[in-house]
Amino acid sequence: MTTLDDLVSPRSVAVVGASNNPTRIGGRPIAYFLKEKFQGDIYPINPNSDTIQGLKAYPSLMDVPGQIDFVLVAIAAKGVVEVVRQAALKGAKTAMIFSSGFAEMDEEGAVMQQELSDIARETGIRVVGPNCLGMFNSSIGFFATFTQVIDRVSPKPGGLAIASQSGAFGSHIFYISQLRGLDVRYWLTTGNEADVHIAEVIKLLAEKDDVHSIFAYAESIKDGGMLVDALEIARANRKPVVFMKVGRSKVGAEAASSHTASLAGEDAIYDAVLREAGCYRANSTEQALDIAYAARPRIYPTGRRTGLVTLSGGAGVLMADAAEEHGLDVAPMPADAQVEIKKLVPFAGTRNPLDVTAQFLNDLSLVSKFTNLMLDRGNYDGLVGFWTTVAGSPTLSPVLQAELKKALDGREDKLFIHSLVADKDISKTYEEAGFPVFEDPSRAVGAMAAMMFFGEAFAAGRPGAPTVPEVKPLPEGVLGEREAKAVLAEFGLPLVEDILATTADEAAAAATKAGGPVAMKIASPDILHKTDVGGVALGVKGADAAQAAFKDIMAKSKAAVPDAHIDGIIVSPMIEDGTDCILGAKIDPVFGPVVMFGLGGVFTEVMKDVSFRRAPVSVETAKSMISELKGAAILKGARGTTPANIDAIADCISRFSVFAAAHAKNVESIEMNPLRALPDRCIALDALIVKSS
Amino acid sequence: MTTLDDLVSPRSVAVVGASNNPTRIGGRPIAYFLKEKFQGDIYPINPNSDTIQGLKAYPSLMDVPGQIDFVLVAIAAKGVVEVVRQAALKGAKTAMIFSSGFAEMDEEGAVMQQELSDIARETGIRVVGPNCLGMFNSSIGFFATFTQVIDRVSPKPGGLAIASQSGAFGSHIFYISQLRGLDVRYWLTTGNEADVHIAEVIKLLAEKDDVHSIFAYAESIKDGGMLVDALEIARANRKPVVFMKVGRSKVGAEAASSHTASLAGEDAIYDAVLREAGCYRANSTEQALDIAYAARPRIYPTGRRTGLVTLSGGAGVLMADAAEEHGLDVAPMPADAQVEIKKLVPFAGTRNPLDVTAQFLNDLSLVSKFTNLMLDRGNYDGLVGFWTTVAGSPTLSPVLQAELKKALDGREDKLFIHSLVADKDISKTYEEAGFPVFEDPSRAVGAMAAMMFFGEAFAAGRPGAPTVPEVKPLPEGVLGEREAKAVLAEFGLPLVEDILATTADEAAAAATKAGGPVAMKIASPDILHKTDVGGVALGVKGADAAQAAFKDIMAKSKAAVPDAHIDGIIVSPMIEDGTDCILGAKIDPVFGPVVMFGLGGVFTEVMKDVSFRRAPVSVETAKSMISELKGAAILKGARGTTPANIDAIADCISRFSVFAAAHAKNVESIEMNPLRALPDRCIALDALIVKSS
Repeated sequence: MTTLDDLVSPRSVAVVGASNNPTRIGGRPIAYFLKEKFQGDIYPINPNSDTIQGLKAYPSLMDVPGQIDFVLVAIAAKGVVEVVRQAALKGAKTAMIFSSGFAEMDEEGAVMQQELSDIARETGIRVVGPNCLGMFNSSIGFFATFTQVIDRVSPKPGGLAIASQSGAFGSHIFYISQLRGLDVRYWLTTGNEADVHIAEVIKLLAEKDDVHSIFAYAESIKDGGMLVDALEIARANRKPVVFMKVGRSKVGAEAASSHTASLAGEDAIYDAVLREAGCYRANSTEQALDIAYAARPRIYPTGRRTGLVTLSGGAGVLMADAAEEHGLDVAPMPADAQVEIKKLVPFAGTRNPLDVTAQFLNDLSLVSKFTNLMLDRGNYDGLVGFWTTVAGSPTLSPVLQAELKKALDGREDKLFIHSLVADKDISKTYEEAGFPVFEDPSRAVGAMAAMMFFGEAFAAGRPGAPTVPEVKPLPEGVLGEREAKAVLAEFGLPLVEDILATTADEAAAAATKAGGPVAMKIASPDILHKTDVGGVALGVKGADAAQAAFKDIMAKSKAAVPDAHIDGIIVSPMIEDGTDCILGAKIDPVFGPVVMFGLGGVFTEVMKDVSFRRAPVSVETAKSMISELKGAAILKGARGTTPANIDAIADCISRFSVFAAAHAKNVESIEMNPLRALPDRCIALDALIVKSS
Repeated sequence: MTTLDDLVSPRSVAVVGASNNPTRIGGRPIAYFLKEKFQGDIYPINPNSDTIQGLKAYPSLMDVPGQIDFVLVAIAAKGVVEVVRQAALKGAKTAMIFSSGFAEMDEEGAVMQQELSDIARETGIRVVGPNCLGMFNSSIGFFATFTQVIDRVSPKPGGLAIASQSGAFGSHIFYISQLRGLDVRYWLTTGNEADVHIAEVIKLLAEKDDVHSIFAYAESIKDGGMLVDALEIARANRKPVVFMKVGRSKVGAEAASSHTASLAGEDAIYDAVLREAGCYRANSTEQALDIAYAARPRIYPTGRRTGLVTLSGGAGVLMADAAEEHGLDVAPMPADAQVEIKKLVPFAGTRNPLDVTAQFLNDLSLVSKFTNLMLDRGNYDGLVGFWTTVAGSPTLSPVLQAELKKALDGREDKLFIHSLVADKDISKTYEEAGFPVFEDPSRAVGAMAAMMFFGEAFAAGRPGAPTVPEVKPLPEGVLGEREAKAVLAEFGLPLVEDILATTADEAAAAATKAGGPVAMKIASPDILHKTDVGGVALGVKGADAAQAAFKDIMAKSKAAVPDAHIDGIIVSPMIEDGTDCILGAKIDPVFGPVVMFGLGGVFTEVMKDVSFRRAPVSVETAKSMISELKGAAILKGARGTTPANIDAIADCISRFSVFAAAHAKNVESIEMNPLRALPDRCIALDALIVKSS
């Protein structure tokens, strides 16, 4: 299999379905190659013309004398498979298919698409599309696309790369990025993804030295594991990845799956996986491009201490709100530094936000003085300033920039984002001086938060995960409660001890052994809803009561389900204190084994307060799963209750996640629920393992 | 007291501290009056010059021969009080003070500011500021401001009015609104608010026929009642009010209160009050101006059914996500209409979003056909379309607009917002045709959500509220649990019945009377933390146990607090089932009596899942308080539990709110907590009334 590198840097290209008309699908790429001066060989393929747009044309791929690296296919769907076969024969490394009419249309199309996948797998040719809008590499003028946007703009090769499943929306993103002054080097759309899919494209971009940041857009992911690997390469190379994974909502996910015919993973899992891989999930194009823009100076603060400075007290309050909403730390200036600020400007706000007041108009040197104080004494990881139209003034802006540069001299690792209103030319002078500028102060703060997210993610690196051992297979057949508990307990997980009593005397003995009150439950593969048949007794105290309960449960269960096979009655100690949690695992169609932790009952089902990770997770990661719950305080002793043992829960989550990963191929879901969190330990009162069918 | 109408439409103005230099604070307004051709009389006041900027100047206000409607004060703080006194003597209706150095600076300044308030109250002159940046009425060229922004732009009088406490941020908002093509008629900043405050300004604007929408910005509100009245006038006049109330976060609120020296109300209460009054609370300037912009066609859909149409499936998914996030109803098209769409475009997405695909480029009449189908058959309240750069094409845009107009002919009450990328001139053609346009599809959907919010709020009108009766005063002194319960019970609120037992025999009798298990609690004004001293016994069953518990509690309580005055022991029936809720009221510094409802314990304290309203509330409003809880499903029978009686809870909330409103002057807070919600009723197990000191 050739690498995707060939995809973005071909030395020759053939266009099958080449057209003389530069507005036709088969004409645009040729027109763009010529306009953007692609230096490789261009072979128009058209059986009816000798020349196309002034280039020599060939009747078929096989008639082309030289090597063809890249075959672009712009003919009706039914001829595509044959052309791609020829391309492979001809030794092409990539075939990119504009044509639609494949899986997105009907069954017949899906069959043809499968043939394309097969050719790719069998011959090693890489197939992009079908039903894609193409790609470009602006550094070599290779514009293999029929998007109309290239009519209007000639992108300069900058540090941004865009990967999008959607062609039309990918074009939109690209065009808006041009309007924002962002120079795009690579732009790739993957369409139906018969072979090359978006995760692989991200991986390619993450590995490229000339890419500094990546904007990805997708409705579905084919290979979650590869996506995570790609994101980890980007993280290791300190490249921010902003990801618009749409289909977040119920109706959005329905629209996405009817549009792409892909199985959608659970959105909360995407959220967790992307965040853990150091990837920023953006919910709008605007937000995503704000981040790509703010990443241009390539400064990623490694902490969240944020200094705010403003010439309007009101804007300061607004920015403080935004910062807190984004989880930034608007720490106050040290008291002695506040005194110094008061000496500089008596009416100044000194705490943080620093309000320089209109006084700064009379003395712009205050800007460097305030900035120095904030960096030296406030020790902030990043600064956001609000200067509104003042900083857009042609006379003031050079002075302001000089003051800012003076203050930042020798600490070019400090990011200072500005909110100001200026025309494009003046904004550009700030940008060239290394300062991202935003009209809207809230967006300036949001961009800072994203840069800090990346800084922390880059510093943290890929989270460690325990190794997954070889395990012996699960017992045959359906696993009942007792079998599930036994398997998990054998793996070292904490479960309440069960004794199977087959007689009333055994039940009495078990109750005596337990010491305190016990729970008694009918054990039968034929009785699922134990409570409904009278098969449960709780809080049974002492031998006599246990005997009586045994007889009662047996009688009721037999009466309710006369043919049931009954193994006996499970006797287990009651644990009445502590906090109920739920620990679960399931196999996500995109990301494989996933572990879930939450507080029990309504916290999970009504409040949806749960955290997810790909399994397995380390104890460290398990702790972050616990602490990111909205209700985490409940486990940490809120309202004067005794705190649960967080270490014990984290150990349990981690070990459970290893179990889930080890058995991923053979299970559908696993639960330890309720997992009772106690001051000294945690222990599951029940468990469930559903094997995959 | 003159009305604020005089403030915005004076026929004469004096500028105290007038300067010949048009860039000085006392020079700018005169320069602006001249530049913008204010037709009233302008009297520069300056003892050292005979003419100022070509106008005859006067040594003092008293030397001006004619009437002065409006006195603008731009001199150092210490001379301001005297000038305002003169202005009142001279019969001026308004004095507006640019000068700073008042309450925002120090104690001395605060004293002078109080004098200004006193003059206003005593003489009837209205004082704006001090420390404000001024105002303008663009329809008469009255630019009584020293903001530099007027150097750059001459606002045309449109339908938008801006009211801002902050001058600098108010200027920023105004300037951005100009960049967005929004024409501002009135712009008012209130600064320190010695007299005229922001709520009053909003009221003025809400009453003006030439104002169509209002953008308000504030850090604090002086008179919550007047704010609500102002918002209700705006609602009655179908004027959208977008409010940026900053200081939402803890650090933002601190910054606001250090900046304005005002007491901040609780942010969640602002949220609830503004929403209930039909006012949209925006969190960023961008969002607020999006809404002001989208309101220009003055179409406010009265429902949330939202039709989405797109030429990119990806953008459709994104818009569906955004719509669901905003609580819009992305209802599917009827099945038969979907069949018709398939006939028009075989590859189309037919459900909602409707994906017209690139096919629409070949046949723009599809736009009117799709729009007609959506409005006729899908019955949507509003439509959002995504057309990206295509709709920005100079050749396509007139055709597209003609198709859109054709489809909307005869139903001009339907709002259709478009996401497209076009230059300003082409965007303007859409706007003139009645279509708001946004580059970003998420923002287009957000703006639609806001228009639907206003449509529903205008249709709903001011919520009814029960009348607050005269009540007899609360008993003297501190109210213990029993007194609080008795007062609330007398008002018809459901509280568990208490019996005060003074002997063990009485306790036994009370327990017998209760039938089931009882709770027993020490009753003593000297013992606050009853559990800590062993003063509580729960689940006491029968007469013997009650006698024993009585003795035990007495002994322990006396041992713990030997000098305590003990009234006896409260015996009340235990109610063990049901769901704990909390019902509370407090006196908000801004909005007065406020009622709060939530689920008990951790739901309130950790999950912060509570709802607020100004008291009193109707039963209807109480129901919406219940249903807006994230955990509302818990009361409605989530997880197979028996649903609580929502009607009973709503009745209780409403009646409780009337009680709170009736006693607002004399209480600090009131609680019925826990309020136990049962299938047939709700009943409070404990209550607390804290009187105001």
